[in-house]
Amino acid sequence: MIRLGVIGYGYWGPQIVRNFQSTADCEVVAICDRSAESLRRAKQAYSQIRVTSDPCDVLASTEVDAVAVVTPVWTHYELAKAALEHGKHVFVEKPFTSSGVQAMELIDLADRKNLQIMVDHTFLFTGAVKKIRELVDDGVLGKLYYYDSTRVNLGLFQHDVNVIWDLAPHDLSIVDQLIDDKPEVVIATGQKHLNGFEDLAYITIYFGNNVIAHINVNWLSPVKVRTTLIGGEKKMLLWNDLEADEKIKIYDKGVNIANGQGVRELLVSYRSGDMWSPKVEQTEALRAESKYFVDCISNNKKPFNDGAAGLRVVKMLEAASQSLQEGGKAVTL
Amino acid sequence: MIRLGVIGYGYWGPQIVRNFQSTADCEVVAICDRSAESLRRAKQAYSQIRVTSDPCDVLASTEVDAVAVVTPVWTHYELAKAALEHGKHVFVEKPFTSSGVQAMELIDLADRKNLQIMVDHTFLFTGAVKKIRELVDDGVLGKLYYYDSTRVNLGLFQHDVNVIWDLAPHDLSIVDQLIDDKPEVVIATGQKHLNGFEDLAYITIYFGNNVIAHINVNWLSPVKVRTTLIGGEKKMLLWNDLEADEKIKIYDKGVNIANGQGVRELLVSYRSGDMWSPKVEQTEALRAESKYFVDCISNNKKPFNDGAAGLRVVKMLEAASQSLQEGGKAVTL
Amino acid sequence: MIRLGVIGYGYWGPQIVRNFQSTADCEVVAICDRSAESLRRAKQAYSQIRVTSDPCDVLASTEVDAVAVVTPVWTHYELAKAALEHGKHVFVEKPFTSSGVQAMELIDLADRKNLQIMVDHTFLFTGAVKKIRELVDDGVLGKLYYYDSTRVNLGLFQHDVNVIWDLAPHDLSIVDQLIDDKPEVVIATGQKHLNGFEDLAYITIYFGNNVIAHINVNWLSPVKVRTTLIGGEKKMLLWNDLEADEKIKIYDKGVNIANGQGVRELLVSYRSGDMWSPKVEQTEALRAESKYFVDCISNNKKPFNDGAAGLRVVKMLEAASQSLQEGGKAVTL
Amino acid sequence: MIRLGVIGYGYWGPQIVRNFQSTADCEVVAICDRSAESLRRAKQAYSQIRVTSDPCDVLASTEVDAVAVVTPVWTHYELAKAALEHGKHVFVEKPFTSSGVQAMELIDLADRKNLQIMVDHTFLFTGAVKKIRELVDDGVLGKLYYYDSTRVNLGLFQHDVNVIWDLAPHDLSIVDQLIDDKPEVVIATGQKHLNGFEDLAYITIYFGNNVIAHINVNWLSPVKVRTTLIGGEKKMLLWNDLEADEKIKIYDKGVNIANGQGVRELLVSYRSGDMWSPKVEQTEALRAESKYFVDCISNNKKPFNDGAAGLRVVKMLEAASQSLQEGGKAVTL
Repeated sequence: MIRLGVIGYGYWGPQIVRNFQSTADCEVVAICDRSAESLRRAKQAYSQIRVTSDPCDVLASTEVDAVAVVTPVWTHYELAKAALEHGKHVFVEKPFTSSGVQAMELIDLADRKNLQIMVDHTFLFTGAVKKIRELVDDGVLGKLYYYDSTRVNLGLFQHDVNVIWDLAPHDLSIVDQLIDDKPEVVIATGQKHLNGFEDLAYITIYFGNNVIAHINVNWLSPVKVRTTLIGGEKKMLLWNDLEADEKIKIYDKGVNIANGQGVRELLVSYRSGDMWSPKVEQTEALRAESKYFVDCISNNKKPFNDGAAGLRVVKMLEAASQSLQEGGKAVTL
Repeated sequence: MIRLGVIGYGYWGPQIVRNFQSTADCEVVAICDRSAESLRRAKQAYSQIRVTSDPCDVLASTEVDAVAVVTPVWTHYELAKAALEHGKHVFVEKPFTSSGVQAMELIDLADRKNLQIMVDHTFLFTGAVKKIRELVDDGVLGKLYYYDSTRVNLGLFQHDVNVIWDLAPHDLSIVDQLIDDKPEVVIATGQKHLNGFEDLAYITIYFGNNVIAHINVNWLSPVKVRTTLIGGEKKMLLWNDLEADEKIKIYDKGVNIANGQGVRELLVSYRSGDMWSPKVEQTEALRAESKYFVDCISNNKKPFNDGAAGLRVVKMLEAASQSLQEGGKAVTL
Repeated sequence: MIRLGVIGYGYWGPQIVRNFQSTADCEVVAICDRSAESLRRAKQAYSQIRVTSDPCDVLASTEVDAVAVVTPVWTHYELAKAALEHGKHVFVEKPFTSSGVQAMELIDLADRKNLQIMVDHTFLFTGAVKKIRELVDDGVLGKLYYYDSTRVNLGLFQHDVNVIWDLAPHDLSIVDQLIDDKPEVVIATGQKHLNGFEDLAYITIYFGNNVIAHINVNWLSPVKVRTTLIGGEKKMLLWNDLEADEKIKIYDKGVNIANGQGVRELLVSYRSGDMWSPKVEQTEALRAESKYFVDCISNNKKPFNDGAAGLRVVKMLEAASQSLQEGGKAVTL
Repeated sequence: MIRLGVIGYGYWGPQIVRNFQSTADCEVVAICDRSAESLRRAKQAYSQIRVTSDPCDVLASTEVDAVAVVTPVWTHYELAKAALEHGKHVFVEKPFTSSGVQAMELIDLADRKNLQIMVDHTFLFTGAVKKIRELVDDGVLGKLYYYDSTRVNLGLFQHDVNVIWDLAPHDLSIVDQLIDDKPEVVIATGQKHLNGFEDLAYITIYFGNNVIAHINVNWLSPVKVRTTLIGGEKKMLLWNDLEADEKIKIYDKGVNIANGQGVRELLVSYRSGDMWSPKVEQTEALRAESKYFVDCISNNKKPFNDGAAGLRVVKMLEAASQSLQEGGKAVTL
């Protein structure tokens, strides 16, 4: 039985508690939040779980085996570090940390203490992303050409980070999984209009082997869009996460290039066949992720979404932010 | 009566001929193309119009008052120059020329000869773009925040230019009209996968006054998308050009920022009201443009889509291409 | 404080309990279900509420002021009757009863005992239907021409009723509210394919004043559709309940008929203007309905969705079933 | 070489002329219309084709081998009869005739004269319908359960027939092809609001073997809908003819019924698998149909869309009209 303490009971915390609470071999034993109102809500929903406004009550508790850090990103490092130092495994909300340096220190600390870090890259546990991974791994799409994502909506403005740190971690954790080649260069552009943080941004990542990723994030869009195009040599894929059914469509479409008669003549032909929408698993992603966390701890197994995965995403976020601040400069990873 | 000679009868040429032929006070008197097959098609459709494979038959003809240049972009400069030198007005397919230098020379030549140049920025004559311009000019959207366009589909690969020169002129001619502020810096990223030209690209343009434009163009998309988001302080707009009806939707949505109690605290509130889709004029854009060309020539009036407009678009294309070649470098206009 | 007993804790019961439990001046004091598993779920969610498998514990309890009957339709009459006889107000799941005779008896009984009956026509409390009613009442649509609804999906097959009794009550309760004219004739067609009950059916209702309603219900559709068209003399309306936003679209479209020159010549002209999608209230419908039930009881007020409203819907259901059984015979109401 | 005379050059006539004109072994030699303006348009488009306002010039011409009748339905019988009597093959616009009696007389006359009749059921030559037929014929859908079509839009009001005769022939010609079982009973409901003809109607057709078809036609809809659901035992199909791509979607969805433990207990289980959208041929339907007509005449072959097919559709139209007039009475075929 893993006894979990949860720090942070704002928007995402209740989801974390609900899912871990219903996971076998796991029990939420403490909930911590600075806000009295949040604690009141926690108490009402889970009368049997201890609540506290002091993180130390959780971090230092002998009744706690693992800590879930579900707080603003700038607090992750300090809280996760304290948890690890007290011998607790940690489950950290994405993005992992505010900087690569912090992430590396936490990874190192966990290694020395033989503890697990899991970064909450929830999207990797959705049926849609699992199906896409499977298609890529099985070679259905062929060599990848590009990953192009649009993730826009109205709000919610964050008070401490720009739109990149808020919305891009989802896509970055996905490209980290899907694309085997290494990210080499990041270029980001964007603009601030309202509260001093960029509210829209465009990130290009050049990977090895001519693979390119582009991520369009925007807090100022009148409509919500969650659409990703993935181009491959053999097949192309459209992922619309807002569709209730048919989230993924695979197109038997492509382009073939052959040399023509003349020296400079290239013959381009187009292939346009059937479309296919595979059934996608409907289980709640966080439910699967909770189970996996308990499983990794119980069996002393390193999760695939470990600190190193979190670090790779943070490095891309750092590079994007730096590029944005330096007027779109190409930042080498 | 304006007597028009048309050079180029491939994909777009027949549209040009059909529309000018049905324009009052205009008559197409000659069609030129290198391909015998194209000339055969022209002859079959318009038995009364003279056809020729030699551009000089059109450029130097005393029966021709104006020449429409509907050929690949790298031939525009030479053909338009010859037409102007022979005293003909010119209607040039977009993009205007292959370089800003060429464009400036043509503008200068036309001015000295007191001839008109019109660049075929067809989209500016669609009901949708005319309505959007009206909404922006009337202040309905308020101060503009951004223009974000996605223009992707499968093919058609061009043999002589990359995807930017093929697809971006549409959006560039539109932002040139909609955004009063000057474009200052262009950053473009992209990738080549097949025939040695970039088949997908992402262009950011920084305008004065914090306005930003982004254009996503792609020849390797399994689905066709023609969607533009325009954010303004008062209203936001979605333009989906693939919709048969309801091409434009205007959202009474926005964000208000007020200072909160604390020093660093900003209070963000969201406004979410009705949506409204105005009826959009259905006339064929090229029909209106043909009429306007004849009108400008007849009344010695400079069109708004003149050589200077064409030049502004070419400068942005040049900057985008340069940025792309130099790995996403910020190119100042 | 109204003390509510809830009978039936299957699919809809938990929604009823959750909403009434969070309504001011209301307290759920007992939950009854025959299934031990259902009672276990109830106990887990609401440890403080008494659970029982015997309806009499609720119906006869002196601690209960009102009873919610959330059981299969064929049990409504008996349970509601017992509740009324014990002096309890009743909230009955739709459809009200299995027959008009039963409904009339309950209405009569409630009147004699001065008790309230509310039939759970939940859709009448959604933001969408409230907005449509407002538009009709304000004359925005003009004289109504037709109401045409498609309500299809895969399953869920009911074991005791056909698809009409399962899906049509929603639309029937809505037309009962929207259309001032009286329903006069009902014609229904349909077919049984699987379990002995009609799994798809088409209902036409002729109202006075040339208004017509048509309802397409189907348990065997591969896709879920919830679309209603409402035609009026001045405006036309499309309600797509599956849209997250823009559920309602109002079209300034119509047809005008004038007499032409000849005797039999009618000149038809079409009006096609803007479309407008009003913001629709997002509150949970059942929450508003719960509040309204408590309000009606507390102030001894007859609800608009009272027994009589329930009876009008049941009469249309009876007529549709009869028509279906008699091969599409026109049944006069 | 088949020499074709075309009678009627209104909306559809120009399509007929264009397609037959470009069909091998076929030549349009005469165009007839009562309207001088129509003849002017014909002359402008086809200077080499003879035009006339007198049908006899076509019907009795020795230069004409076959006649296309593209006029209002009430004139079909008389014109087709005269053409057959003069020894011409006929191509008749749908619906074939105004009555079954007329259709039978024409079929009989053509048989005696050994001439071909083809009824222009264009939809049967579209890529979409051809693909659906193939899927049904190959048993992919399994035993058919239902065909449910919605064909609605604003206008165009016809001056001589109701909405059934205008819009339903499309679906009726399709069900005639898809459903092997015989139509047995027709029930139609609807309403007149404007010009004395029904402007919306709902047709149910009961076929043998428990197959049911329903057709919703409406001239008073603010939006255009062309959607058909086809339910089968093995697969279900959605055909949206307004989609540019993905017109047909096939769902691996269904319901299985097994006997449960109790006597009356049926266990219902749902199957929900992948969706698949086959590539559909893009050729213009009328082009394929023109070619087929020439082929049938040249090889003295009876087309599948012959007079008998036209008669079957007319019989269903007659039955639907009769049912409508008699208040929804069930009309046996």
